[in-house]
Amino acid sequence: VPRTKRSGEFELIARYFAPLAKGFAGARGLKSDNAFLPGDSRHDIVVKTDTIVSGVHFLADEKSGLVAQRALRVCLSDLAAGGATPFGYQVGLSLQPDWTERWIRGFARGLAADQRRYRVSLTGGDTTRTPGPTTITVTAFGKVPRGRGIGRDGARVGDELWVSGTIGDAALGLLAIQKKIEGAALERRYRLPLPRVLLGPRLLGVAHAAADVSDGLLADAGHIADASKLAVTIERDLVPLSPTAKKVLTGSSALWPRALAGGDDYELLMAIPKHRRPLLLAAARSAGIKVTRIGAFAKGRGVQLTVTGQPAKVSLRGYAHF
Amino acid sequence: VPRTKRSGEFELIARYFAPLAKGFAGARGLKSDNAFLPGDSRHDIVVKTDTIVSGVHFLADEKSGLVAQRALRVCLSDLAAGGATPFGYQVGLSLQPDWTERWIRGFARGLAADQRRYRVSLTGGDTTRTPGPTTITVTAFGKVPRGRGIGRDGARVGDELWVSGTIGDAALGLLAIQKKIEGAALERRYRLPLPRVLLGPRLLGVAHAAADVSDGLLADAGHIADASKLAVTIERDLVPLSPTAKKVLTGSSALWPRALAGGDDYELLMAIPKHRRPLLLAAARSAGIKVTRIGAFAKGRGVQLTVTGQPAKVSLRGYAHF
Repeated sequence: VPRTKRSGEFELIARYFAPLAKGFAGARGLKSDNAFLPGDSRHDIVVKTDTIVSGVHFLADEKSGLVAQRALRVCLSDLAAGGATPFGYQVGLSLQPDWTERWIRGFARGLAADQRRYRVSLTGGDTTRTPGPTTITVTAFGKVPRGRGIGRDGARVGDELWVSGTIGDAALGLLAIQKKIEGAALERRYRLPLPRVLLGPRLLGVAHAAADVSDGLLADAGHIADASKLAVTIERDLVPLSPTAKKVLTGSSALWPRALAGGDDYELLMAIPKHRRPLLLAAARSAGIKVTRIGAFAKGRGVQLTVTGQPAKVSLRGYAHF
Repeated sequence: VPRTKRSGEFELIARYFAPLAKGFAGARGLKSDNAFLPGDSRHDIVVKTDTIVSGVHFLADEKSGLVAQRALRVCLSDLAAGGATPFGYQVGLSLQPDWTERWIRGFARGLAADQRRYRVSLTGGDTTRTPGPTTITVTAFGKVPRGRGIGRDGARVGDELWVSGTIGDAALGLLAIQKKIEGAALERRYRLPLPRVLLGPRLLGVAHAAADVSDGLLADAGHIADASKLAVTIERDLVPLSPTAKKVLTGSSALWPRALAGGDDYELLMAIPKHRRPLLLAAARSAGIKVTRIGAFAKGRGVQLTVTGQPAKVSLRGYAHF
């Protein structure tokens, strides 16, 4: 169930869909998670679409309020990485045959709570039925000052790689839900992303590039590096862990790849030039979100992981789930 | 497979989703098919989301190029009804387990052809897998002069009801595909909508209200009437038919309800004040699209159908397909 993708998706996009977007500059060649539409004279509208499928991207028996919030929040997370302040969203909801009105009531309540939390509004959508599993596509809208939206492709040689919050909780939380490990405290991190909506807009003028951690720390750092035509090195010892995750990984270091590649963290990865470190720390403080330096960008290509200074093999860049 | 909905969808929207949109004026209480986002100082961005599911909204063995074009065009049809000129779209594509690269290649080619035809560009999206049938959600974007987007709710007493093109071809075309009737000429009208993209923007300042015919002529005329808090009368003898549809209905008048309620026509229904009739005719001529007066709005509620001047029973307002 981890929301990660094998490279197949990126290849399909590059081969078949990127050519369809090349006439529209705001699509950024589909190399950014977000699209940028012309808004008013001072803003662009940032747009993000994400689809989640029951049994694939969320547990089939998950509470519908949490499903709704996941569908919305995964998009808000991308908007945050783009530096955008969200304001609205469209929902395409395809209901599986055994849908109940109770399920929909919970779904709408989940959205209502998040609308207050994130100050967004439903703008429109479509409801239909499917013989398959319930499928939800959200297209979320945010605003950024014109031309200043943050992409994946702006990292420069020497930039530091920073990450918000803690990594691995969601992937380990899924194992806890599956009773494979102890770690009840982590379950909620899997069930419900906490998009860094307050930090994102504060990265304008601070981050050269950013992405959210949805496919996995290693994969998403790699996406920034690839889009920026650089290499990125991550020091495993610097990766911020929650107390519970630290305990789990101390007891079972074989789970490290899971924590680094499992995805669903919905933290922000940021390429920050050294001299802007104080700006980043001020932004993070003002958002009430912890940030940690975990690596750096250099000439070259690919992702390198070091463990206590030694290069480690990066074998797992996300489960084959596309 | 007809793309119609039982009233359940409208009830769900009113009960659970409309409250989520009441803080955003551009959502128009979800009573319009389109949402209106603030664009630049002179334009609104018109937004429409539609989901189509294999085996529900298109034939499971349909060519993927036609599937792609259907997914895009049903949204362009709504944008046209809103008076908008389309410019871009997001695609959420969930692929069923037996997807092939050939299918995707055809899908992308279908989109490429329509991008040239309608002058739109892919702006972004998401590709994922589903254990269920292939599901496509398109969110399309268009532009209208600020505050002038056409809704369903502007019809006034005395307005005439006009419709573009011909009605019933798609619903009868589906019967032809199913070998239930003769009518090969109609099949294409079912397989591929022809959204009235050239007519829509020309309705600004002409139509008080508009909607596209997706759920069926009677249902969609009813949606305009309901949203405008009026009654609408349709004279069946005035409803424009293609030569083939006329032949089918002459031979088998039991198929009339199917033609009037079957949906998938993707023509435009327009509420036009009498004195603007010359403007409408000029707009239609300039778009190269035929328009026909088929009824009128009056005080009251509901849809009334008359056949040679006598009230007929409106029993079938769309198949129960939601």
